[in-house]
Amino acid sequence: MSVDLLVQKIKEKGNPSVAGLDPKIEYVPEYIRKKAYAEYGQNLKGATEAIWEFNKGLIDALYDVVPAVKPQSAFYEMYGLCGEEVMHRTISYAKEKGLYIILDVKRNDIGSTAEAYSKAYLGKVDIDGVECEPCPVDCVTVNPYLGTDGIQPFVNDCKTFDKAIFALVKTSNPSSGELQDLLVGDEHIYEKVAQCVNKWNEETIGKSGYGAVGAVVGATYPEQAKVLRKLMPKSYFLVPGYGAQGGGAEGVKPCFNEDGLGAIVNSSRGIMCAYKKGDWKEEQFAEAARAEAIRMKNDLTSVL
Amino acid sequence: MSVDLLVQKIKEKGNPSVAGLDPKIEYVPEYIRKKAYAEYGQNLKGATEAIWEFNKGLIDALYDVVPAVKPQSAFYEMYGLCGEEVMHRTISYAKEKGLYIILDVKRNDIGSTAEAYSKAYLGKVDIDGVECEPCPVDCVTVNPYLGTDGIQPFVNDCKTFDKAIFALVKTSNPSSGELQDLLVGDEHIYEKVAQCVNKWNEETIGKSGYGAVGAVVGATYPEQAKVLRKLMPKSYFLVPGYGAQGGGAEGVKPCFNEDGLGAIVNSSRGIMCAYKKGDWKEEQFAEAARAEAIRMKNDLTSVL
Repeated sequence: MSVDLLVQKIKEKGNPSVAGLDPKIEYVPEYIRKKAYAEYGQNLKGATEAIWEFNKGLIDALYDVVPAVKPQSAFYEMYGLCGEEVMHRTISYAKEKGLYIILDVKRNDIGSTAEAYSKAYLGKVDIDGVECEPCPVDCVTVNPYLGTDGIQPFVNDCKTFDKAIFALVKTSNPSSGELQDLLVGDEHIYEKVAQCVNKWNEETIGKSGYGAVGAVVGATYPEQAKVLRKLMPKSYFLVPGYGAQGGGAEGVKPCFNEDGLGAIVNSSRGIMCAYKKGDWKEEQFAEAARAEAIRMKNDLTSVL
Repeated sequence: MSVDLLVQKIKEKGNPSVAGLDPKIEYVPEYIRKKAYAEYGQNLKGATEAIWEFNKGLIDALYDVVPAVKPQSAFYEMYGLCGEEVMHRTISYAKEKGLYIILDVKRNDIGSTAEAYSKAYLGKVDIDGVECEPCPVDCVTVNPYLGTDGIQPFVNDCKTFDKAIFALVKTSNPSSGELQDLLVGDEHIYEKVAQCVNKWNEETIGKSGYGAVGAVVGATYPEQAKVLRKLMPKSYFLVPGYGAQGGGAEGVKPCFNEDGLGAIVNSSRGIMCAYKKGDWKEEQFAEAARAEAIRMKNDLTSVL
């Protein structure tokens, strides 16, 4: 199961964190933007070529520090076909550098359509007998609102192709509670979803002791994380909300198991925009990102 | 509000249905596939050029019968960048033919990321002062699991750019009940979500009497549809599950209001693969699709 690969990379780097690649154009240093606009025009193409330069610099500076990167699909779809193309380019480049790829797409649909999404990112597409891999990554995020038959196609591909998924359980945003915290009897919806995740995960446990079906659990809700850790002991947690969204290392501690494993903490803006804090120059964006990634690694490992 | 445009187009055609464009390669007639493979190769490019020919034929045959088309993003993402490109081409072509475009993407994320998704499809992207429209459609589907701050960016763009959304409430698949039917007090989760949809919709009511925030309500659950119709009186329903998934015209009737409006019923496989039933030849796929779309229109209007 692919989560074994993630665990291996986390152990190699001694770092349970993932760098989010959410490249809003305003995150990109001005000198890169200007150069790209001059060469490609101030349009979708120019913006995405600037993003590519930025991403490449970040990956070059981070690949020996972090085990994984998490491109957020929204920030590539936002630039249309040019954005999609740069997302594919970024994924290929990060893979060449040995990074584990978590593609944050939060896809969800009914059975046969979920199967199509799964084939797009985890599996293979059959073109009258010829197999193709449209956009191969190690792992995607999924939304569980449609129940088991919207998730099973992904689980099947996890088993066949050695991949992994993270299902939304308790998200990091302020209004996550509107639905996720509703009480069904004496259990919250997020606990109900956690029970589903645990069940889906059962049949996928790998050598690391963790299965292929993980959970998204926001760093902003440490109390809920404690409960969820117990409900899904063999699921990896993908933890957004560290740093920029307010959660610190103590806040994410409940997401880890006693073995110091079981969670990977995301930072996007904190790493990407590190150069905007302190005395860094724009040209030092990659160096600043690396320094922040190392600081975050030390912060996280200090509490484990 | 953009749902006024949908209502206008439904009235013009006298047809409350939408043709789903979910082009699995096996739906495409063999002669089109063979020709495309010969010209472009039996690969992602060949498959998507075959899909383009198929889509174009379907749109040409349907544009004066149906008010809207609904491309399902999964079946384009499944063919990688080539698939994305053909999805954009299909959207542009359908728009030229005067069709209302519902892009079925079921996107969802936290605030700033939801904003990026909304800009991608409903709004505009600001590139240092230059505005671009990456993939403009009339309407997208969204998943409500993250609560209000995951939906509000879409609602804002609906208001600014005269667009619409459909939020998942009660989906048509067999396991939709696992989460959606859980009881919170004496109300089901789908009723709770319906109350949210009704609230989000309130500030967007247009001249037609309907707002920009609609709901996905599966044709396979008519009893629940009755309840939901009352909870969201001013929301349009997007109704999957007619035909191929088992729901008939009587089954979808509860999704409509007394005024004969309030719902648009989707058929994908039923229309796209109509040529596979009866005495049609492959080459008549477009004629068969048109005949099925007309039969469906008559079936639906007979019960209203």
